[in-house]
Amino acid sequence: MAHPNICWEDLQAGQVRDLGSVTPTREAIIAFATQFDPQAFHLDDEAARASVFGALCASGWHTCSMAMRLMVDHFLIDSSSLGSPGLENIQWHKPVFPGDTLRLRVRITDTRAMRSRPHVGMIRIAWEMSHEGGEKVLSMEGWAMFGRRNPAAPDKPAV
Amino acid sequence: MAHPNICWEDLQAGQVRDLGSVTPTREAIIAFATQFDPQAFHLDDEAARASVFGALCASGWHTCSMAMRLMVDHFLIDSSSLGSPGLENIQWHKPVFPGDTLRLRVRITDTRAMRSRPHVGMIRIAWEMSHEGGEKVLSMEGWAMFGRRNPAAPDKPAV
Repeated sequence: MAHPNICWEDLQAGQVRDLGSVTPTREAIIAFATQFDPQAFHLDDEAARASVFGALCASGWHTCSMAMRLMVDHFLIDSSSLGSPGLENIQWHKPVFPGDTLRLRVRITDTRAMRSRPHVGMIRIAWEMSHEGGEKVLSMEGWAMFGRRNPAAPDKPAV
Repeated sequence: MAHPNICWEDLQAGQVRDLGSVTPTREAIIAFATQFDPQAFHLDDEAARASVFGALCASGWHTCSMAMRLMVDHFLIDSSSLGSPGLENIQWHKPVFPGDTLRLRVRITDTRAMRSRPHVGMIRIAWEMSHEGGEKVLSMEGWAMFGRRNPAAPDKPAV
């Protein structure tokens, strides 16, 4: 396999990447909710108006999934991404309504080599999805694994 | 609106609920990944065999979304659920492969009234999704809001 453009070595704490935007339609919001989160405030205008959200809004899992699609299209697809063990501190700050344009920005906050796997490094990513006006709708953070361009030298075996 | 069967008062720390199971097909895994997480190891057998996962596997967001569907169908739909501000400590312990049967169990770990909103209470939920053999594939935890059957008495206004 050819080396991807972005390997672990290219990712440094402090780097910020703007990863484009997405504008969910009413149809997309209802389609996701029908499949994965069929609560009335994600499906039905009248029920949503009577809810804490005030209008039909996207499932929080839909918002996360839309963020992931931007992450893949504008970052991971061109990288040595090897997946993630998990995420912390998902916060859905505001409801997402049909037609909202949401921009994803990620910031690398830490990097680590993996002692146990010389071909792999970890980076810690803080995700932030915001309205065009700057108001946050989603934030989360976590470690992700990336292949290294130059694997670490193996530890010498103990003698 | 008629009162739902499950209100905040019915939810107590220590309660455990088994919320059914889901068995994702290969087609469902590829459909989700095509839309939200088009990394090769979620789409293509050959690329997946060469990856850390060893075979085509579900997006972590798909696993979370499948857990949400079980949560709605077997718990929230019959409750006064008012959504959630976020989640913590999502861990994808193992990859999910086509045909895996995954069971969701949730445990209530804490409850709190909301001082600012007498009609609403919070409960803290620990989610665990496991293979039939008991091996964990997903865990996460977080607060969720539920309507109260009996709203708290409002604080007396300061005199």
